[in-house]
Amino acid sequence: MKNTFGTSVAVTLFGESHGPWIGAVIDGLAPGLPVDEAFIASQLTLRRPADRTGTARREADDFRIVSGVFEGHTTGTPLTILIPNADTRSGDYLRGPARPGHADYAAFTKYHGFEDYRGGGHFSGRITAALVAAGAVAVSALKAKGILIGTHVARCAGIDDAPFSANLSGDLEKLNSLPFAVLDEAKGARMREAVENAAARGDSVGGVLETAVLGLPAGVGEPWFDTVESVLSHALFSVPAVKGIEFGDGFALADMTGSEANDPFRMKEGRPYTTTNRNGGINGGITNGMPLVFRCAVKPTPSIALAQQTVNPLTGEETELKISGRHDPAIVHRARVVVDSVTALALCDLLALRYGTDWLADSRP
Amino acid sequence: MKNTFGTSVAVTLFGESHGPWIGAVIDGLAPGLPVDEAFIASQLTLRRPADRTGTARREADDFRIVSGVFEGHTTGTPLTILIPNADTRSGDYLRGPARPGHADYAAFTKYHGFEDYRGGGHFSGRITAALVAAGAVAVSALKAKGILIGTHVARCAGIDDAPFSANLSGDLEKLNSLPFAVLDEAKGARMREAVENAAARGDSVGGVLETAVLGLPAGVGEPWFDTVESVLSHALFSVPAVKGIEFGDGFALADMTGSEANDPFRMKEGRPYTTTNRNGGINGGITNGMPLVFRCAVKPTPSIALAQQTVNPLTGEETELKISGRHDPAIVHRARVVVDSVTALALCDLLALRYGTDWLADSRP
Amino acid sequence: MKNTFGTSVAVTLFGESHGPWIGAVIDGLAPGLPVDEAFIASQLTLRRPADRTGTARREADDFRIVSGVFEGHTTGTPLTILIPNADTRSGDYLRGPARPGHADYAAFTKYHGFEDYRGGGHFSGRITAALVAAGAVAVSALKAKGILIGTHVARCAGIDDAPFSANLSGDLEKLNSLPFAVLDEAKGARMREAVENAAARGDSVGGVLETAVLGLPAGVGEPWFDTVESVLSHALFSVPAVKGIEFGDGFALADMTGSEANDPFRMKEGRPYTTTNRNGGINGGITNGMPLVFRCAVKPTPSIALAQQTVNPLTGEETELKISGRHDPAIVHRARVVVDSVTALALCDLLALRYGTDWLADSRP
Amino acid sequence: MKNTFGTSVAVTLFGESHGPWIGAVIDGLAPGLPVDEAFIASQLTLRRPADRTGTARREADDFRIVSGVFEGHTTGTPLTILIPNADTRSGDYLRGPARPGHADYAAFTKYHGFEDYRGGGHFSGRITAALVAAGAVAVSALKAKGILIGTHVARCAGIDDAPFSANLSGDLEKLNSLPFAVLDEAKGARMREAVENAAARGDSVGGVLETAVLGLPAGVGEPWFDTVESVLSHALFSVPAVKGIEFGDGFALADMTGSEANDPFRMKEGRPYTTTNRNGGINGGITNGMPLVFRCAVKPTPSIALAQQTVNPLTGEETELKISGRHDPAIVHRARVVVDSVTALALCDLLALRYGTDWLADSRP
Repeated sequence: MKNTFGTSVAVTLFGESHGPWIGAVIDGLAPGLPVDEAFIASQLTLRRPADRTGTARREADDFRIVSGVFEGHTTGTPLTILIPNADTRSGDYLRGPARPGHADYAAFTKYHGFEDYRGGGHFSGRITAALVAAGAVAVSALKAKGILIGTHVARCAGIDDAPFSANLSGDLEKLNSLPFAVLDEAKGARMREAVENAAARGDSVGGVLETAVLGLPAGVGEPWFDTVESVLSHALFSVPAVKGIEFGDGFALADMTGSEANDPFRMKEGRPYTTTNRNGGINGGITNGMPLVFRCAVKPTPSIALAQQTVNPLTGEETELKISGRHDPAIVHRARVVVDSVTALALCDLLALRYGTDWLADSRP
Repeated sequence: MKNTFGTSVAVTLFGESHGPWIGAVIDGLAPGLPVDEAFIASQLTLRRPADRTGTARREADDFRIVSGVFEGHTTGTPLTILIPNADTRSGDYLRGPARPGHADYAAFTKYHGFEDYRGGGHFSGRITAALVAAGAVAVSALKAKGILIGTHVARCAGIDDAPFSANLSGDLEKLNSLPFAVLDEAKGARMREAVENAAARGDSVGGVLETAVLGLPAGVGEPWFDTVESVLSHALFSVPAVKGIEFGDGFALADMTGSEANDPFRMKEGRPYTTTNRNGGINGGITNGMPLVFRCAVKPTPSIALAQQTVNPLTGEETELKISGRHDPAIVHRARVVVDSVTALALCDLLALRYGTDWLADSRP
Repeated sequence: MKNTFGTSVAVTLFGESHGPWIGAVIDGLAPGLPVDEAFIASQLTLRRPADRTGTARREADDFRIVSGVFEGHTTGTPLTILIPNADTRSGDYLRGPARPGHADYAAFTKYHGFEDYRGGGHFSGRITAALVAAGAVAVSALKAKGILIGTHVARCAGIDDAPFSANLSGDLEKLNSLPFAVLDEAKGARMREAVENAAARGDSVGGVLETAVLGLPAGVGEPWFDTVESVLSHALFSVPAVKGIEFGDGFALADMTGSEANDPFRMKEGRPYTTTNRNGGINGGITNGMPLVFRCAVKPTPSIALAQQTVNPLTGEETELKISGRHDPAIVHRARVVVDSVTALALCDLLALRYGTDWLADSRP
Repeated sequence: MKNTFGTSVAVTLFGESHGPWIGAVIDGLAPGLPVDEAFIASQLTLRRPADRTGTARREADDFRIVSGVFEGHTTGTPLTILIPNADTRSGDYLRGPARPGHADYAAFTKYHGFEDYRGGGHFSGRITAALVAAGAVAVSALKAKGILIGTHVARCAGIDDAPFSANLSGDLEKLNSLPFAVLDEAKGARMREAVENAAARGDSVGGVLETAVLGLPAGVGEPWFDTVESVLSHALFSVPAVKGIEFGDGFALADMTGSEANDPFRMKEGRPYTTTNRNGGINGGITNGMPLVFRCAVKPTPSIALAQQTVNPLTGEETELKISGRHDPAIVHRARVVVDSVTALALCDLLALRYGTDWLADSRP
């Protein structure tokens, strides 16, 4: 549905990079969920560029909840969050050559030149701020039900982070407090250095995000078409720059034999579990109670300062483009909290479909 | 929507591995499309196991169109295809230990033991026959509009096929006539040998499918949430055993710099094109007129003859399982036509949303 | 979604009047619901023409459940019911003049002449047999949860039935066993006589159906757009010949004052109730725990034997038409069970959205 | 989908009576539609209470478009309109006795007491201002394609307006400029007098709205489930106080014979038309090219000053309630423009599904 995702819990996204406000509406949340504005703000901080690894555009993200919250709790009716765009410099942008790797040309074709081209308009990564604000409510609600989400920069500029440890819940807690989310700080330092080097060259780098979700009940997912993989990938491919997704061992499974890829079942405390988790907590599109694990490939930021060959779709002229303005030499570390947010929203939808609208608030006194 | 996919053109899937009929309903197809039953049959043949690389279960797939076609053309109302299950041996299956890597345990939890467990029930790969039959109508309709889909086994058991050549349309035509779809027949022979060796060991192997779509107009896709990647991945993760998807260079993009990953634009015959296609024909979630290219990771078939550790979810007992019955030592080569079918159905939906219900039949006299 | 209705519990409808099979798929039903084939058959009998008040076409409606039921219970996966068309006389129909009051001309325009015109094709009342079969499963499931639906012919050929009595559950039980559902048998006899007189004149008559639903919990309905009235009216206007719907006192409310129209609240056994029920059990689009009451206007059957002025859309010629073939002089009494069925399906969807997928089967041992 | 309506063109509604902003997001509009803010303002004026026939609450409705419009035209991405709530007096409302005829008790049950109860919260008629603003864009877009919508107060307080004349387009033009939309001004004066008399008594009155749509092409509507009647009634029952809908002659058809109810076809200027329009421009759920005509029953405003029996759902106590605060003695005349707005939005969706996203803007130079 274009800019609305979900059926039972649905999020609608709007706004442009250089418009007055961007925002999101979440509909279908259980009534009675506590809404923690400080947590929303902290999630927005994780998305915000912090140093030389991010764009020089600085937005305070001074969000405002204008509906759906009353006396500190969700009402159960649409929750709307607005975020102002304050630090816009539209003069940096002119309708002109299509930026390679960006939506510019495709959007020009689709919207016949009526799209707001300034700063990427509706297709700007800026809009993810609204997703993060909306997602923060979902992340909180899931946490209150014992469902914990966390993502690390598993790879950046060719450098691998350490893998998740045996203490997965400790890993997720730690990651959620870090501005540059890695499990091995030394690896993280090397990644940041590589990002800064790319920036110095006028270039950019990409990476891989690895996400784990703990505490999901078994039996969630609606095959054939609304499998956990289908619903999550649908949501995650809306995050700009994501070009690949794999669940569990993903592409590596293609090279295994069945005897390697099948996760054996054993019993622990009266419940089945698997001794390995190569299928990422999903069998047949349905959760099996093991941690949900997936990875997203994030391409390098397309806005670079180096000269690029391109065309002007208005005039049809071939030209060379050097993008000025303020840009990120990498977004993989900022995209981390966007992935968490989108994951939380999609899981809230699947859980509400299975267990009913009120389930998320069942611990309500 | 569980077993219905799509909004403007929607497919609904039903049936179980050992029930009397499986089937699919396609709703929203343009009226006036010629329906070629011989082509549907030939697509079903591509899915059917043909030799020692597939299961010994042999289904004639003697499908029957029971609605939505009149005097050889689509009516525009729901087109329903039924396929009988003839060669079922339910005695091979007992409700018992959960087969590792299968939906058994997850489905038992979700459906509380009421699911039809025989042969995997509704979660069996058998159901893809109905998807292929429905998809064949979509494949034909797209072809009549100059949109050509083809998939090859890009990798199987660790062996790589040749990449797509400069003559992409020739490649696709060729692939669509091959039972085991590879561009390099020598590589294909080695793959088949590896599959047969796995079968001999009682094991199975996986692989990677690479798909290309030629002739899609630029401007298709509905960001934020119904990007081309979102809609296709949603559909493709409904294909059993698919555990990863990447568009264009996908995960390889994560290791590139922006200057490498951005596809430069140039003009040819008055229209922009890109000199490389690392983004797989999609920018910002919208087609850019270049070939759409993606890859799916297909895990090895979970049904293997080797002994596996598992539990019986009914009794909670740990046990060892040797799966008898008839199974595929690989499904990647059979999944190829399923991927084509699902891709065609999803693209028909996106195209109908953009251009209207009748667009697919516009060449109608 | 065209031929699919519902999100959590969805029904998909297919078939044509003179095709081999018509059918329906219900997706999203809770697993573990008992499926009573005798009850489905009895509901189909209520829909079937029984005497001179109905068409001479006689269908045995020898339905077959081909998926979604295992060992007598729903599996939770798509339940598909097929009904054969046996007594078709396609020779009675030729593509020719548009029958006034029928879909013929509108469908010709929409489907460009590719529609199956025989017997009204996909737009025939025949298709409601599939709705009734599917609805029977929903009716049973609701009944097991204490939710009772019943409809009477409140008016036919200008003759009013008695209103619902104080013993509403007794009324509904009685109605559900009657082939011609009236509360006052004497009025029913006069109605049937009027129908037969119309038939004798080659004409037809209409009527009003009044439906009550007992036992719905308060708090069901999803304003703004999925109010109980919105969802039910959406479903009910799919029943052919329904041209008006009113909830509670409906159009009569337009002539009342607020002090007359407002239902006062009082307490009984610790729960609020209203001393009148002018709003039909719905306030603000949400159930209030009182009986849900609504009425549907059913127009006279458009197929009549009298001469009518019309045109042939193929040729553009004006002509006079006398419809031969076998037709109903009234359908209001046969539509009764269709209304019950559609109501049950729509309520299952609203209830599943609110209380989760499994709620309908919660009494399961 | 709760607070989102539509699939191809979708509107999402949010806000509460006493929150800071209410608003709407329209997604899926064609790019390039001119957006006329003066027209939006004038539509809001028609909804605004103007004299003693409306509430004393006076809102300037100083709306702001914050996304989706660029250089005076729609961009094709989500168009968001915000309207501030300025004149709120929350002190007039306390969580207390449920107001009879209002959503209070039903919402309390559904939202467990977390709903914003002030002024009816999300269930207030105030929210219709956002619908009207959003609908104005749709009304304009349809008008540019030659599709004209208009509604009159066909009945109020038991007084009938004159029926539509032979000059229907003239009638619609006239109605759209009137604050109290009647075809016969003398009847309108008597209606207004009756409203004022009701106000003086502390009571309220209801009425019937009759709507006509001119210029719709034949062939619009998607049976079975998305018939024109289904889609419009779904949307219109979201308008507060609407309790009945009938298309064409509606309930009067129930008393006709088939020979009276069937609209005969004749040819004019090479195209079929019907000599009567008892079916309201719809056959088989599909438009037939004749004017679309329907009527909505609007119940009297439930907020009245007279003493009413009710209960306090929090305490379970029976009590008597006299509603103070500022209320409308009738809303039927204000609801008129809401009905037009909702109709326009629903038709845009049906048209976009049929003809594609860009159709509405096809006259674009």
